[in-house]
Amino acid sequence: MSARIPELDQAAARSARDRQSRLTKPAGSLGMLEEVAVKLAALQGTPLPRSRPAAALLFAADHAVTRHGVSPYPSAVTAAMVENFLRGGAASSVLCRQLGVPLRVVDVGVMRPPALPSGEGICFRRDPVADEPGGDLRVEDAMSEATFRRALAAGATEVDALPDEVRLVVLGEMGIGNTTAAAAVAALLLGRKAEEMVGRGTGVDDAGLARKVEVVGDAVRRLEGAGPERALQSAGGRELAALVGAAGRAIERRKAILVDGFIVSVAMLALERMAPGAREWMVFAHRSAEAGHRHVLEALGARPLLDLGLRLGEGSGALTALPLVDAACALHANMATFEEAGVPDKGRG
Amino acid sequence: MSARIPELDQAAARSARDRQSRLTKPAGSLGMLEEVAVKLAALQGTPLPRSRPAAALLFAADHAVTRHGVSPYPSAVTAAMVENFLRGGAASSVLCRQLGVPLRVVDVGVMRPPALPSGEGICFRRDPVADEPGGDLRVEDAMSEATFRRALAAGATEVDALPDEVRLVVLGEMGIGNTTAAAAVAALLLGRKAEEMVGRGTGVDDAGLARKVEVVGDAVRRLEGAGPERALQSAGGRELAALVGAAGRAIERRKAILVDGFIVSVAMLALERMAPGAREWMVFAHRSAEAGHRHVLEALGARPLLDLGLRLGEGSGALTALPLVDAACALHANMATFEEAGVPDKGRG
Repeated sequence: MSARIPELDQAAARSARDRQSRLTKPAGSLGMLEEVAVKLAALQGTPLPRSRPAAALLFAADHAVTRHGVSPYPSAVTAAMVENFLRGGAASSVLCRQLGVPLRVVDVGVMRPPALPSGEGICFRRDPVADEPGGDLRVEDAMSEATFRRALAAGATEVDALPDEVRLVVLGEMGIGNTTAAAAVAALLLGRKAEEMVGRGTGVDDAGLARKVEVVGDAVRRLEGAGPERALQSAGGRELAALVGAAGRAIERRKAILVDGFIVSVAMLALERMAPGAREWMVFAHRSAEAGHRHVLEALGARPLLDLGLRLGEGSGALTALPLVDAACALHANMATFEEAGVPDKGRG
Repeated sequence: MSARIPELDQAAARSARDRQSRLTKPAGSLGMLEEVAVKLAALQGTPLPRSRPAAALLFAADHAVTRHGVSPYPSAVTAAMVENFLRGGAASSVLCRQLGVPLRVVDVGVMRPPALPSGEGICFRRDPVADEPGGDLRVEDAMSEATFRRALAAGATEVDALPDEVRLVVLGEMGIGNTTAAAAVAALLLGRKAEEMVGRGTGVDDAGLARKVEVVGDAVRRLEGAGPERALQSAGGRELAALVGAAGRAIERRKAILVDGFIVSVAMLALERMAPGAREWMVFAHRSAEAGHRHVLEALGARPLLDLGLRLGEGSGALTALPLVDAACALHANMATFEEAGVPDKGRG
């Protein structure tokens, strides 16, 4: 995959920064909310950027690596949670409803194809790549190169289907076992040890954590020196690949990515390695409680908006942060300037 | 003032905590959002607490201490900003509109009475206490004891006027010079030095900062050993007193307070000293960039939701955090349990 990363519009950013300095508040007093507005201006090529419409894409897949007892939950939970998304009972469904964000769930590798209730405003697609075989990343490639290409394409296809007006893409994932896959990919990309990247995921106990470190360690030894594509294909998972494909296409279409927690961040790190500059198109929603996330954020030079101890995945952290991006854009666009309000500014009299 | 602090409903909190453990997510994976839901359950006496309706009350006053050059802005900005609130151009007006929160602005001591445009959904009242004389806290009491009582009452009156259904009160303030007053009150209550509590406020330069430290130091020497009421009366300001009165009455009416930044936190610290246990009724919205805030938060045992480098006041930080409280309540109420969703839980099979 070779995503073309568009140029940032520096003139729009300058114009937005100038506007921020004229709004009725002490300069800089809206902190990161000012930075978000200026960043989105550069991405959208307008001094008055918008956070909406936003769209949430959630990619789900299973992982053969669960056979090693790396998660306290059985693989069957992936399909059950996809059904829960569609029935509106999962965290991300609740947040999407609350925030008026359309949610689209894409099965790129769930073992037992989910049953399909039809939810209000919630859409589902099972991509054909979901039927291809997967491997145990401890000992073999998680997918073939052809499957990897098709998983990337499955993500891009979803973004192609989004309306042009969509400004912000919220990416999320579901897949029992995928913190193990993400830890392996991140360890390879960052040249870090398994124990630095492995965390408790959905809440594995000490014995499970030790198994997880072993499994990731084996994968890292097997794949040492792998580049981002090879790491994703061999140690990742189809939902990770789909996230990369979706983000790459979203950026090509000049849409910003609202990045969720550990797993999505690892996919974004891989994308940045494949297409340098991609990270400029990302707004980082939160610092996950998952142990390895800080290394990934550091490598991406990211300072996330929230630090609430979240570690759920499913795009839930990104959705929780979306109202902050909404606030940043609303303040930027709708506050009065000193001149408009007739308020004396300190520097301007 | 002697606010009666109601008992927390521990049964409701237990019931909410039990519900959290049955929702379709790993236990604890929603971090602080879970804690907020459980806390509101204890305050509202129901296992399914709500964040709405919310109401924002903003108290404004001027400060004679500005004569010492402690702010880069002239006192006239207080009245001009009140007008800006009412016309809808200020940060808090924009956020209230965006979030559907009614905003009420109360003048408790603005020197030049603001002109009154009528804004959509924005209400204004000039309390009679605004016409009483104020003093320069460096050398004399910021207000008489009678004025202090009436300023407390002005805050309580506003809360009395709120509908019973209001669940969450957002408190904010406006007043050129009031970071100086708040720093003096906090230094007295915490037994800290002026230089620990004084920050740049709206952005004072180094010389102004030095003047501010001197002014606060003089007030602290003048008032050493003062209790919370005496500190508020003599070193505070009418908007600080009104915040205390409003919060006390809100708590008596079993409404939670969404606490903004430095100045509101100092008022809440004074209230906690006057009515121990009051802090249990507070949700802390954000960690301000204003230097002294961390000491005040520490004294209150507070861990705020946001840390975005905000330092604007006007309740803007609290309003920015309100969607997180909304999310906490929506997730708590609307997520499916493992049983409802037919998702296998790890501990429960």
